[in-house]
Order: sequence, then structure tokens, then C-alpha cells
Amino acid sequence: MALESFLPVSPNSHFPIQNLPYGVFKPLAGGNPRVGVAIGAYVLDLDVLHDAGFFSHTIFASHNPFNQSSLNALMALGRDAWREGRATIQNLLRAETSTLRDNAALRERALVQQSDAEMLMPVQVGDYTDFYSSREHATNLGTMFRGAENALPPNWLHLPIAYHGRASSLVLSGTEIRRPRGQIKPPDSAAPIFSATRALDFELEMGFFIGGGNALGEPIPVERAEEHIFGLVLVNDWSARDIQTWEYQPLGPFLAKNFATTISPWVVTLDALEPFRCASPTQSPTPLPYLQSSGETFDIQLRVGLQTARMDERATICESNFRHLYWNMAQQLAHHTVNGCNLRTGDLLASGTISGPTPNSYGSLLELAWRGARPIQLTNGETRSWLQDGDQVTMTAWCQGDGYRVGFGECSGIILAAYDEPVS
Amino acid sequence: MALESFLPVSPNSHFPIQNLPYGVFKPLAGGNPRVGVAIGAYVLDLDVLHDAGFFSHTIFASHNPFNQSSLNALMALGRDAWREGRATIQNLLRAETSTLRDNAALRERALVQQSDAEMLMPVQVGDYTDFYSSREHATNLGTMFRGAENALPPNWLHLPIAYHGRASSLVLSGTEIRRPRGQIKPPDSAAPIFSATRALDFELEMGFFIGGGNALGEPIPVERAEEHIFGLVLVNDWSARDIQTWEYQPLGPFLAKNFATTISPWVVTLDALEPFRCASPTQSPTPLPYLQSSGETFDIQLRVGLQTARMDERATICESNFRHLYWNMAQQLAHHTVNGCNLRTGDLLASGTISGPTPNSYGSLLELAWRGARPIQLTNGETRSWLQDGDQVTMTAWCQGDGYRVGFGECSGIILAAYDEPVS
Repeated sequence: MALESFLPVSPNSHFPIQNLPYGVFKPLAGGNPRVGVAIGAYVLDLDVLHDAGFFSHTIFASHNPFNQSSLNALMALGRDAWREGRATIQNLLRAETSTLRDNAALRERALVQQSDAEMLMPVQVGDYTDFYSSREHATNLGTMFRGAENALPPNWLHLPIAYHGRASSLVLSGTEIRRPRGQIKPPDSAAPIFSATRALDFELEMGFFIGGGNALGEPIPVERAEEHIFGLVLVNDWSARDIQTWEYQPLGPFLAKNFATTISPWVVTLDALEPFRCASPTQSPTPLPYLQSSGETFDIQLRVGLQTARMDERATICESNFRHLYWNMAQQLAHHTVNGCNLRTGDLLASGTISGPTPNSYGSLLELAWRGARPIQLTNGETRSWLQDGDQVTMTAWCQGDGYRVGFGECSGIILAAYDEPVS
Repeated sequence: MALESFLPVSPNSHFPIQNLPYGVFKPLAGGNPRVGVAIGAYVLDLDVLHDAGFFSHTIFASHNPFNQSSLNALMALGRDAWREGRATIQNLLRAETSTLRDNAALRERALVQQSDAEMLMPVQVGDYTDFYSSREHATNLGTMFRGAENALPPNWLHLPIAYHGRASSLVLSGTEIRRPRGQIKPPDSAAPIFSATRALDFELEMGFFIGGGNALGEPIPVERAEEHIFGLVLVNDWSARDIQTWEYQPLGPFLAKNFATTISPWVVTLDALEPFRCASPTQSPTPLPYLQSSGETFDIQLRVGLQTARMDERATICESNFRHLYWNMAQQLAHHTVNGCNLRTGDLLASGTISGPTPNSYGSLLELAWRGARPIQLTNGETRSWLQDGDQVTMTAWCQGDGYRVGFGECSGIILAAYDEPVS
């Protein structure tokens, strides 16, 4: 018989008892930030449960990682603690377990409607790294900018390319995105001009958070990498393509990316994703030994919706899957530390744009509209090569189980017009 | 009459009363980390002074930013507070001021010999950005890798190029540097190999810390940039050139740089540097309006010493100057935020390698030995194209005043052999 909660959860909910993602929230009624898990339409307040003694026989007995404004304290405890916490919470929510089910007063205190909670940034991020691990995405960009013959850079099949992103401008789903300004160099202009970006884009990504890091100088071997992965979120790495084109040689993207990166509020644990493990793409040439992994990834369906100011509801413009990524998370993490670079609890490692093999699976407007050559057609007759002011981009992700979904909720942002005053 | 302290300070000391750089230290005799200023051969313990009531008539009366393990609390207070703090401390140390001078018991508690103090990382860094602002350095690299005709990238004279570095691996002067391993592709090899780097380098840089940031979406205009600069340190951005060559296209340096970056422990304030303000290089073409600054920088002499395992003392291998930088700090900061990117108190913005016009002023071995074509000759007959295990690199910097120096102390690191076991 399938695992079920005593709480009602619809088959399409992202948050059945099989999921139990962690987040940080503040009840709208008042109170400090604290840690909760999503269950159906509720947030289960883990601080209330801890106060009520439900973790007294666990590793969490002596200290409470739930009365915190981030998940970092929980993430630092390591995989054994994560698993014990998950088992404790899951058991408490089972249909057969009466403890919480039959205690109306405790339910009243511990269960908050998600609509009565404000979600907060779940993690205090030290360093944010962005990979470039989708072969289809790298091939598409290479084809557009260098031609089909030289689409993939020579190093691409040998190592998971990455660069450091900006931690300060990571924002939570729902945060409005101000159109950035900067230097662009139009093709017909001899010199760069100062302008609001004319080529604003999204990038469909996922990212994972480090729980328990490594000391400087001590690499994490690939076969132990997953022990350091707490969970995943959706990531929208907003990009200004015209700023990027002008600035990125020779040191990589900078102002084109660091004005904002949006993440979803619920962190789905690796344990919740375990039933959806699947093979990652075959790798040829065989990577160097330090990158030889299990060859496993996760089957996570991805969707991007766009709603313009003139639309009543959002329309799907991209459907992709996390499994398309050529380099898996263990390889990314092992590569990141092989030179001795230290990761810390709370660090975010994002995948890069996750494009699939078909044109409707491309994870950015740059690819979907092929650099403006074939603007996408929206259901109301509008077209888009790039994002316009008022456009709202919403990403969702879920694993499809037998009668349930392990989902990530939403990662959403709406574009605000650039400030129009000059820089004074 | 020149400003003098009642404490003895030799003319060659980096720490006269005109300087008063801030650092975080722990007395070897025991005690928590706290904030101090360097004066001659001493550290003045500001927490002791605060406890003794010396800040009771200042902006620091109601809270104490000195009983902290970083300068962040002090830096967050803003320029008026920094100036009031500096004036208070400087007055207390003057030859004419009797308060501390004539109080032996207080001197005993407040003055610690620098040799009796362990210096700690002065700042908790959120994001670390590295610029590429030396025209001579960019020209040298461009000449080596692309030829003299295309030495500077097309964007270089229009914007201060930068990329995001790694905050987690910032380390304090004196930390040993483990030679990193990674993928390199020797010219005679068809595929990359896994190896310890064979081309380990230093980069002579300076960096400044942000005190008081900006909200996301709200740029800091160039003429207000200096209000957000607390002070400067020396920075050695260690680099593995062979790893860099293979990995850096198209997204910039990653593992070639993020294994370690060393900074000096004393943060020299902008107010201490004020007497050494000078013109920065003429800029042509004229930058876009948002980058048009006072055209001022600071005259800071820079020196790099190398001591191999077979040498008894270090030999100078580079003499440069901060004033050579084409883009000044105000321009760097204005550019960084012009797209709305938010800076936070504690962020570090480094200059990039500071090379001057003459061959002995190049700020990296890559340039000094011209990519191995002309190894540098050391005084004991050894030569170097790249750093060897046991080599110690020590950077120093100072402004030469009339009879005194405002100095930065040292930024030093010694190379340890790579681990020789395979990655298991």
C-alpha cells in the first residue's frame, strides 16, 4: 500500500508525504522565521514540533536547527541527521500515526496554511557556482556564435565547465526583477552605448545546496560527492544577452548575470528524489578517473511558463528534463574540489541552462527564438524574442511517481521597467 | 610640526600614527578575537579602549564594533563613523595627549606587541570580485596569447573587465598554499591529463573592502563610490596557468584561481591614504558618463619578494605601483553596480594584477618570465619560470610620506607540494 498522510493531498500536489521539502517561513500572523516542511497545502512548523518534544529521541534532541532563519544549521549536520529528521517527520505525518493526527491543539499550532505563510530565502549562500553542463545548450550557443562545426569548445567533453556567480543577488521566487542597464554595443555602432538591456532572457536551471563542506586543500572524491548534497531547488539565472556579448571576453559573464538570480523556496532533498534515479547520458570520451561516477542522475520534469501583461494565464514555452544534463551533480562537485577548493555548507552549485534535444525543450529564449531569428508565438498572438517589461516567467519541476508527484513548486519573477533617470 | 605618537615608531615602520590600519587579532596569551589598530610594533586593542570608556562620547558609545571577530560591524557604520573612530584613536596616540601615555596600567592592557598577537582574517567576505584593470598586464597577456596587434580586447578601454572569484578560499597572509592539481593539456598531448600544476604563479594585486552597500537595483554613482570604500589590503591571486589555459574558455577562470587567494591582515583606510592621492592614467577614449570619475588614484609603491628553499633571504623580483592602474576604484565600483548588482559590507573588490610599464614592474611570473621564454635569474643562481615547492612569495606596499610611511605590512605564502596520492 502506498505511503499516505492523514492530511489530504491531491495527486497533482507537489508536496505529498513522499516529498517533504524544507523551507524557511514566517507566519503572516506573526512570529520569527523558522524551518518547516511542505505537506499538501500546509507548512508543518518544525520548531513547534521540536518544542513539543517530537525530536527528543533523535540527533536533534540537544539542539534545535529549526528555530533558525536559514536551513544552514540543519544542512551542516550531515546526511545521517538529514535521514533521521526525514524519517521522524514522515512517520509523524503517516495516516497510521495518531500522535499528530489525533491532537487537534497541536495540529492547530504546527500546521500553517501555505497561503498564511511568507516564504523566505531558505539558505544563507556563501558562494554560488554556475555550471554549463547541458550538452544541448552548449551546442546551441556554440552553433549560433561559432558555427555548427565548432559548436562545442575543445574542453567541453572533458570537464564540467563552470564559473563563479554572484551570491548577493540571489533572490526568492516572487521577487520583481528590475531590467538592468549597462554597456551594449549594437552591431551598427562604432562604440558601446549605455542602455537598458534589449535582450533580457531567462535560463532554466536547477541547483543543489552543499551540506557539510570540505577543508581547503582536501578534494571530495566523486563517489562521496552525494554525501555533501542536501537538496535541490529551481534556479532562474536571468541574463542580459547584449551586455553579455560585449563584456564576456576574456573573463566570462559578469554584469550580464549578476543583477539577479531567482531560486524556488522549497529545498527537495536527495532522499526524496531517490526513487527517480536514472541513467545520465553516456559519456564519450571517457572522463579522467576523478570524474568517473555512477553515471546516475534524476528524472525531473521541467516546465517554463510565460505570462505577458496582456495574457490572463501563463502559457508553456519550454518542457525539458534534468536528466538531459551531460555532467551529473557528483561530477560537478568532484571537479569543483579537485584542486582543493573548499565548499561550505550553504554553497549553491547550479547546473547551467537545461536544454533538451527538441526545440521546445530549449531552456532559454536565446535558444527558443534562436537569437531572434524565429520569435516564439504566444497563444494570444504576441511574439517574443526577448522578455518585455511586465512579462512573468514561472518555472516548475516535478518527479512523476505512481499516483503522486515529488515537486519543487514554483520559481517565478516578473520584469519591471528599467529606471529611466540617468545615472547622476 | 609632524604628527607624532608618544610610542616609538621607526621611519621605516609601516605603521606610524598617520596610518592606523585596522585588523582582527587574538592575543597569544589568550582571549577572544577583537579589533585593533597597528601602531609601530604594537597592536592597540580597541575593545580594551572601548571598555575603558574612550569611545563614550562618540558614535560608538551605544554599541561596540570592536569586540568582534571581523571588521564588518565597524565597516557597516559608514564613513562618518570611520572618521570619528580614526580621529579618536589618533588623538589618543599623539605625543601631546597624556590620557593613554601616562596611564601605565591601561597601556599594559591596551598595547600588545605584534609578536604576541595572532592576526586573523580581518573581514567576513560575502562576494569577492576580481578586476583586470592594469593596461600593461592586459597588454602583456594579450601580446603573449593573441599577438601584439590584438593585445587588448575590443571592450578593454571601454569598461573595467571583472569576474567573480571565490570567497571561501580567501586566506590570511602566512597560510601555506598547497599546489593544486587538475586537468591540464600539454601541447604534445592529444587529450588532457590529470596532474599537479606545472605553472604555478602569483598575481600582485590590491583589493578594497566595501563598507555600507547598496540595495539590489540601485546603482552607486561614480562620484559617491568612495563613500563605500572602507580600506585596502594586498592581494595575491595565486594562479595555475596550465589549468587556466585549458579551462577558461568560454566562461573565464575557475579552478585555476579558486584554490587560494591570500590577503594581508591590516586594512589601510582611505583616510590614511588621502595624502597620497594622485592622478590616474589619462583615459582615451573618454569613458561613458557613468564611468567618468575624478581621475584620481593613490601612489602606493608595491614590491614582490621571492625566497626559495635554498635562499637565506628574499630577493625583490618586481617593483610596481598602484597608480599604474587604468581604471580607478571609483570606476570599478560604479561599473559593478550600474546594472543594479548589490554590494554588501565586507565584499572584496580586487584590482587584478598590477603591472607597470617596465619589465621589472610586471606583477606575475607569467609576465616576468614571459611565459617561460626568459626565466628570471635569482641572486643565488637559481632561475624561475614558475613557482616551485618551498618558494615563498611576499608582497609589500607602502606610501612614502615625508619622514614616514603608510604601509600595508606583508602578504606572504609558501608553496607546499601537491598531495601525491591519487584521488580515491
